[in-house]
Amino acid sequence: MRIRNIKNAPELVKNHPLIITELTNKTFKNNNKIHLEVGTGKGDFIINMALKYSNINFVGIEKYPSIILKALKKINDYPDNLKLICDNADNINDFIKVKIDALYLNFSDPWPKKRHAKRRLTSKIYLDKYEKLFNKEINIYLKTDNKDFFVYSIISLSNNGYIFKEIYLDLHKENIFNIKTEYEEKFSSQGVLINYLHACKKILK
Amino acid sequence: MRIRNIKNAPELVKNHPLIITELTNKTFKNNNKIHLEVGTGKGDFIINMALKYSNINFVGIEKYPSIILKALKKINDYPDNLKLICDNADNINDFIKVKIDALYLNFSDPWPKKRHAKRRLTSKIYLDKYEKLFNKEINIYLKTDNKDFFVYSIISLSNNGYIFKEIYLDLHKENIFNIKTEYEEKFSSQGVLINYLHACKKILK
Repeated sequence: MRIRNIKNAPELVKNHPLIITELTNKTFKNNNKIHLEVGTGKGDFIINMALKYSNINFVGIEKYPSIILKALKKINDYPDNLKLICDNADNINDFIKVKIDALYLNFSDPWPKKRHAKRRLTSKIYLDKYEKLFNKEINIYLKTDNKDFFVYSIISLSNNGYIFKEIYLDLHKENIFNIKTEYEEKFSSQGVLINYLHACKKILK
Repeated sequence: MRIRNIKNAPELVKNHPLIITELTNKTFKNNNKIHLEVGTGKGDFIINMALKYSNINFVGIEKYPSIILKALKKINDYPDNLKLICDNADNINDFIKVKIDALYLNFSDPWPKKRHAKRRLTSKIYLDKYEKLFNKEINIYLKTDNKDFFVYSIISLSNNGYIFKEIYLDLHKENIFNIKTEYEEKFSSQGVLINYLHACKKILK
């Protein structure tokens, strides 16, 4: 994503009531399930998920203040079940201090160069971090328009013990409920096919 | 595949020197690796593989005599490392009596109707049969132009303990060596994308 830097974004973000710096068992005043999105962007997906599923808590992580600011400007009434974190997913195990139930990776940076493969959000480095966030069963839901990143993710997930519950090579052709991200809306209207997978792994303890 | 029945095909096939009724440790006069293709069709793939890799033994299985007859008519000099079996893959464990090293599934019937899913050559029923053919590590190589069958196969393989070594959603775009089947040649020239996967499973004993 090309980022237009907004000068006072870090300050504006920091003081916003939707923003938290860490997710603890005190963040939400209930024991509902927690779904996390890494790379929330301008927030269309996580905001609409929170509005639709009021009995699930949603947390979006986005590293760029200038981008997360756009998400913050989209909502006036903040649902109780939504929080955003402006931080780097590299440190996810430092600021997510509770167990979560689902992880969403929507249109992550594909890092197409081979030498950057480790930076892809489905590389072993990140899968190891995510694993620590879950209790018994890991559930990862991924959407992307990038075929190479999609294939890379299937291979990486399978080599790290995941099995696939669902895979679609043209998600919008399917008759299933789907909340779109802002990118998805744009790409899809240009005729780009959206790839989708749901991967699952039981944690042996 | 639409099959034009050839009246005396069973008889012609039966007496052909390339045809065997079962694969035993006496079939080939060496201890070279054995690669098997289920659904050999008109034989382009298995014949060209045998001609290219003379230090591997190749066996093609095709259930329709009228089709396998076309494969038999393609070659005058039969390489020592090629045999064909005219039988139904349902009974594969009855007529393959040795351990093999690789299995090819090329453009298998996708059986698109959900109620026919068990007939797909990557359903659990067939994966269980294949597993008995291998010693330590199962290697399955699959090519198809049918996206739904491809996705079904990824899900089925992953749920049966396979990991993926390689996946391509547009095989011919890749700069890798690939011997085409007769279908592949035809589909590809029509602009249809060819999906490819190499799945692997260690057998625990």
